[in-house]
Amino acid sequence: MTERKRKIVNDPVYGFITIDHPLIFKLISHPYYQRLRRIHQMALAQMVYPGAMHTRFHHSLGAYHLMSCALSELKGKGFEITHEEEIAAKMAILLHDIGHGPYSHALEHSIVEGVSHEEISRYLMEALNKEMDGELTLTIEIFNGLYHKKFLHQLVSSQLDVDRMDYLNRDSFFTGVSEGVIGYDRIIKMLTVHKGELMVEEKGIYSIEKFIVSRRLMYWQVYLHKTVLSAENMLVKVLSRAKHLALAGEEVFSSPALHYFLYNTVSKTEFEQNPECLAQFCLLDDYDVMGAIKAWATHPDKVLSTLSNMLINRNLFKVVLTSEPFDQETVTVLKSKVELAWGFKGDELDYFVFTDNASLRAYNMTDEKINILFKDGTFKDISSIDNALISHTLAIPIKKFYICHPKI
Amino acid sequence: MTERKRKIVNDPVYGFITIDHPLIFKLISHPYYQRLRRIHQMALAQMVYPGAMHTRFHHSLGAYHLMSCALSELKGKGFEITHEEEIAAKMAILLHDIGHGPYSHALEHSIVEGVSHEEISRYLMEALNKEMDGELTLTIEIFNGLYHKKFLHQLVSSQLDVDRMDYLNRDSFFTGVSEGVIGYDRIIKMLTVHKGELMVEEKGIYSIEKFIVSRRLMYWQVYLHKTVLSAENMLVKVLSRAKHLALAGEEVFSSPALHYFLYNTVSKTEFEQNPECLAQFCLLDDYDVMGAIKAWATHPDKVLSTLSNMLINRNLFKVVLTSEPFDQETVTVLKSKVELAWGFKGDELDYFVFTDNASLRAYNMTDEKINILFKDGTFKDISSIDNALISHTLAIPIKKFYICHPKI
Amino acid sequence: MTERKRKIVNDPVYGFITIDHPLIFKLISHPYYQRLRRIHQMALAQMVYPGAMHTRFHHSLGAYHLMSCALSELKGKGFEITHEEEIAAKMAILLHDIGHGPYSHALEHSIVEGVSHEEISRYLMEALNKEMDGELTLTIEIFNGLYHKKFLHQLVSSQLDVDRMDYLNRDSFFTGVSEGVIGYDRIIKMLTVHKGELMVEEKGIYSIEKFIVSRRLMYWQVYLHKTVLSAENMLVKVLSRAKHLALAGEEVFSSPALHYFLYNTVSKTEFEQNPECLAQFCLLDDYDVMGAIKAWATHPDKVLSTLSNMLINRNLFKVVLTSEPFDQETVTVLKSKVELAWGFKGDELDYFVFTDNASLRAYNMTDEKINILFKDGTFKDISSIDNALISHTLAIPIKKFYICHPKI
Amino acid sequence: MTERKRKIVNDPVYGFITIDHPLIFKLISHPYYQRLRRIHQMALAQMVYPGAMHTRFHHSLGAYHLMSCALSELKGKGFEITHEEEIAAKMAILLHDIGHGPYSHALEHSIVEGVSHEEISRYLMEALNKEMDGELTLTIEIFNGLYHKKFLHQLVSSQLDVDRMDYLNRDSFFTGVSEGVIGYDRIIKMLTVHKGELMVEEKGIYSIEKFIVSRRLMYWQVYLHKTVLSAENMLVKVLSRAKHLALAGEEVFSSPALHYFLYNTVSKTEFEQNPECLAQFCLLDDYDVMGAIKAWATHPDKVLSTLSNMLINRNLFKVVLTSEPFDQETVTVLKSKVELAWGFKGDELDYFVFTDNASLRAYNMTDEKINILFKDGTFKDISSIDNALISHTLAIPIKKFYICHPKI
Repeated sequence: MTERKRKIVNDPVYGFITIDHPLIFKLISHPYYQRLRRIHQMALAQMVYPGAMHTRFHHSLGAYHLMSCALSELKGKGFEITHEEEIAAKMAILLHDIGHGPYSHALEHSIVEGVSHEEISRYLMEALNKEMDGELTLTIEIFNGLYHKKFLHQLVSSQLDVDRMDYLNRDSFFTGVSEGVIGYDRIIKMLTVHKGELMVEEKGIYSIEKFIVSRRLMYWQVYLHKTVLSAENMLVKVLSRAKHLALAGEEVFSSPALHYFLYNTVSKTEFEQNPECLAQFCLLDDYDVMGAIKAWATHPDKVLSTLSNMLINRNLFKVVLTSEPFDQETVTVLKSKVELAWGFKGDELDYFVFTDNASLRAYNMTDEKINILFKDGTFKDISSIDNALISHTLAIPIKKFYICHPKI
Repeated sequence: MTERKRKIVNDPVYGFITIDHPLIFKLISHPYYQRLRRIHQMALAQMVYPGAMHTRFHHSLGAYHLMSCALSELKGKGFEITHEEEIAAKMAILLHDIGHGPYSHALEHSIVEGVSHEEISRYLMEALNKEMDGELTLTIEIFNGLYHKKFLHQLVSSQLDVDRMDYLNRDSFFTGVSEGVIGYDRIIKMLTVHKGELMVEEKGIYSIEKFIVSRRLMYWQVYLHKTVLSAENMLVKVLSRAKHLALAGEEVFSSPALHYFLYNTVSKTEFEQNPECLAQFCLLDDYDVMGAIKAWATHPDKVLSTLSNMLINRNLFKVVLTSEPFDQETVTVLKSKVELAWGFKGDELDYFVFTDNASLRAYNMTDEKINILFKDGTFKDISSIDNALISHTLAIPIKKFYICHPKI
Repeated sequence: MTERKRKIVNDPVYGFITIDHPLIFKLISHPYYQRLRRIHQMALAQMVYPGAMHTRFHHSLGAYHLMSCALSELKGKGFEITHEEEIAAKMAILLHDIGHGPYSHALEHSIVEGVSHEEISRYLMEALNKEMDGELTLTIEIFNGLYHKKFLHQLVSSQLDVDRMDYLNRDSFFTGVSEGVIGYDRIIKMLTVHKGELMVEEKGIYSIEKFIVSRRLMYWQVYLHKTVLSAENMLVKVLSRAKHLALAGEEVFSSPALHYFLYNTVSKTEFEQNPECLAQFCLLDDYDVMGAIKAWATHPDKVLSTLSNMLINRNLFKVVLTSEPFDQETVTVLKSKVELAWGFKGDELDYFVFTDNASLRAYNMTDEKINILFKDGTFKDISSIDNALISHTLAIPIKKFYICHPKI
Repeated sequence: MTERKRKIVNDPVYGFITIDHPLIFKLISHPYYQRLRRIHQMALAQMVYPGAMHTRFHHSLGAYHLMSCALSELKGKGFEITHEEEIAAKMAILLHDIGHGPYSHALEHSIVEGVSHEEISRYLMEALNKEMDGELTLTIEIFNGLYHKKFLHQLVSSQLDVDRMDYLNRDSFFTGVSEGVIGYDRIIKMLTVHKGELMVEEKGIYSIEKFIVSRRLMYWQVYLHKTVLSAENMLVKVLSRAKHLALAGEEVFSSPALHYFLYNTVSKTEFEQNPECLAQFCLLDDYDVMGAIKAWATHPDKVLSTLSNMLINRNLFKVVLTSEPFDQETVTVLKSKVELAWGFKGDELDYFVFTDNASLRAYNMTDEKINILFKDGTFKDISSIDNALISHTLAIPIKKFYICHPKI
């Protein structure tokens, strides 16, 4: 008998998740991974969808579960996957989000510069691999798409990976947006491998169409919901202002880890060359950020305290979405109103009135394609199949412009 | 047309929750109520059930929804409930948890003394009522059980209130413990009023039995789960140690609000006589506590840093549950081991090895009873009905003893 | 107190359905309506989806529930709907399928000629109205689209009626095809009335897109599933053969009601002029048909017995679907094979090898449109909205050709 | 590659059921098994719960799925189960209900005498085994409890078998009685084998309690629901009357298979000695019975036609349930009323006014026990564990008496 045994974890989305390998236990128990318990998967979406409190810890555990199902299905169909490959693929998906910071996208646009969470994930995997004496080498190869069985990488990262399947499932489950539900179990049963690549059996076409349409719906209805956009943009502004003040030498309440990122200019080279930087990053989570913003609500800087107060008490900016960019005139008029009402001036007004855009391409034809394998052995990208919904509409990117400003 | 319109909120548990009255909007928008977004309903249960991240905000919104359903059902059956009573009962349930602090039970056993969250709820309701020019007077009467239509209070607080119905539903939903599911919709359809009291129609007996059995199951399987007990006891110890150090004049990282409660001895009179105390309490939430504990992981006091580190990284104490109290001998032996292994001494060991007990009475016969109304107009407490499960077993309190200690 | 009280019916799809009006009780209790308990909603789809055993009784009760929700939502938004109109609209939807015969589409292509189930529904409504002394007059006006509040008719019959909403919900629930799930509760909350017509608020666009995509998926994956097509075509052939033999004077086992339809040529005039015809139709259901086919498995006519046996024991024809019609050559070759293998000759072979086609238009632009009402008061057909999925693809009808033949 | 491949079947209860062995395909395709498609699992419960239309075919397929899960879990825990044993256990559960007739319990109390459906199942397994050249020998050994690995039989038939787990799941799913839901997935994960017997790990205690309480609830709320009792008793009376008339030489409409059972006295010896009897039984299903009752509604015998009409049109007898038997007086008074109102006399009145009783023991201590295996290797029957709900209450049988009579 092995020392560690089977453990089952209750998951409202899939029922039970089974963990049954010592390496998986080791990884999940590591502080780097436990940190994900303190990072919400959907950042501030809970301001609109109060159930959306689930964490990146839970999401990556869910993606791990789907990976287990997919590998077991493929093995059942006769495709060779060794035990070592199986464990490595499972660890790769567990680690795929390890580099996310608190309120990830907000952070990347405010206090961290020029380094994406994907890159940080890679730094952390390398660090962990060193600590674990190379036990993650195959995991990293798969993650980086360098392993010869390409379908293993595609399960981790492609337009039909278990990451997307889990986040669509989980986000629609926790938000209560039932239209986001996808037939993940059917999709998994339809997965196959052809010429070393992940494909979908012909019978799965409609499930794939539905998957792409659900993703599109989740984007417009949830991820890019006006109020969510508003809250997340306000968060960027709050953090930018705090960093601005910190770099100017003012005192800004912060936990030790947040202090590091406010009072230093942190770029990619910093992450690569300064071990302290990565170490501090691993201590940073949603609690540092939200805890600080609450304290900032009484900060002497009126820009910081006003924004913080509004965000904490959900007094959010109004957002207007359009299909055309806004002209400068609109911005100027709104700034004047804010100036008149609240007395902010000059650059300060940029924190209160600003424009941006969001775009979405439900199916990306230039990215990793979703290939359908026909019974006669031929295969086609789903967007090039007659009658498929995808071709005509969903591959076109849609861009929306928005303006944010206080309701005054 | 009114200024504010209908608003619908997605809830994964009930589908949609409708808000359609200006007073309800006002209350939900208040910072006191918005604070509940930052307090998890199930404290540290997420260490075992990763989905259990939902908040007290979400729970009280859910209880409000069930209150709406129950009132509408009772009105449909011909019982008179005025519009004013309806709004007041809905506000009473929205406010029932307003006095909860972060990790509520842990807090009440560490940094706040001699004042329960129910009492704080009352202080806050009074404060809000003043602010709202008496608009909460009827709400408070109902909440305190002083209004003559007793069933309204019983819907807010009794063994069959919408609070319990929602937390059982919601906690079983988010933990994924499907056995906790109750037939709340059937129970609500079976509610009736007799002699001014809330009762259940005869046809609802089995649903009530099931409700009580589900509650019992949730206690043993979730709320008093060994690992949950462990995490929550460790949290009490961490906070006690921090307060101990703070009162001894040492520097302990904390947000302004937490600082207030660590560096002052806060009792009931403090809450009643010092407005600052209540004001600070309203700024305190889970982010202050968890944010601080993370910083304490590097505190020079080794007790504080050890406990904080263990808790943050989910390296939890072992818990042994028994039906008999532990003898002093067991405690002594375990303390020696900790002393030997880690070097702690004397009182310090009390933070690492300790005993306590938990008890549960699935149905409380001396508390507000659940009465079943028969077709002939007679009624009986469910525990005194022939064949009912409740009488024989579930009214007996069960007490379990436990000991906590590090795995060494 | 009224004589009849509230009654609640358990429905796995919606939880509980409440019935609380004497006219509704009267209608549901009528033998015409109770007959629908014995007609499966999805005919022979259970041969592929074993859960698909639900009845037209259950479906129309579900549509009635959605009608109640929709009317209550519209009233909540301030649109005037009188009590009389409400009851009439509910009765109209309860009765919308009253004219369905057993295995409806099969029947209409075999033993009944030139009269659709919609027409029979109208005959039955007229008959019931006479029996109920005119209590259905408004119901019939609404059903026929003659009542001035057009939205009431549109709730009963249009591209966004509660009939479709319920059958998509219910069929996806009972088949277990989770991708067919629609956000009916959200759609209902987004319904509005403008210029007397049913429309959808702007925020509901993505839910409508999803609704149409789900419908498309259910068609290709369920309703037109190859094996379902096969079973239903075989049923047409069995019934045609039995009628052929009956009209030729041979003895064919049948219940009294089925006997009437086998031994008489029944056309539209028959239904209109001969009360016996309508009376016999009301006694006919799935039990007559399937009960007879079982007996026919030992009939001396080899065509009838072979087909009956195959159908009963799920030894079904193979179906090939293509986008082009089949040439005569293919049919001839297959017929020769059947002749060689089983000895059937001439016309008999038409029962075993035959072609047909199925077509589907997910959104019909010439039919009742789905209009989206914008905040500025303008409205547009969903297919003409920028970025909407519907315009480009889903309005194009898709036609598929198929051939059926035994697996030999 | 094998000739037959993996097949997946959509099941709304479990998602997908996988079939991947030629013997299983063979069995499921057999006419004896296909017949179960035409027998409703819950007989006439659909008169109260309209969703309860699922078939014995679907139930046994579901039980097969749970068997697959349980065996896979046990193998994962290291218990040896050979491939042959696995297939045999799966076939045993597929066949466990093969001997059920239409409206099983009604049939056994009317037109078939002295032979239970379990016995008929055995006859049919023997017949199939002969047809399949002994491929079912191990299956039959397991079914009959004669195989040395006793836990395999216990999975098929005991107080914790997959049969019960599936019917509780499935019946609560299709009726919509959500309180009947059991944590079957958790129970299966807690199964273990000790001394060759099926047991449950200690952590599963509360799930087992809940399972037993759910079963109790389903009995009182669904299986023994007053209106269901009424319908099923009326069915017994209809069939008894028809057989009475048939044996008296009168003409009674019936399909060939039903004719056999109405016009012959069929007992156990008949089944054992006359192959025709078993053959006819295999042609009998719900369609014969309900199809005949519809025709009987116009039979010249007034008892038969009255009962048939009432049943078909859901004009059901009133049922009164009590804890004491009814006295003769009550019966006499009711019979007089029926005589006065409808003119029936003497023995005829026994078809309209009659008493009976129903009893239930939620946990049977003398039957196969449910044993809990503790970590220390000891085990105990769940009813003898301290604090378990079962001991005190649920092992006591409850008997209820009832009387049926027309509402006049």
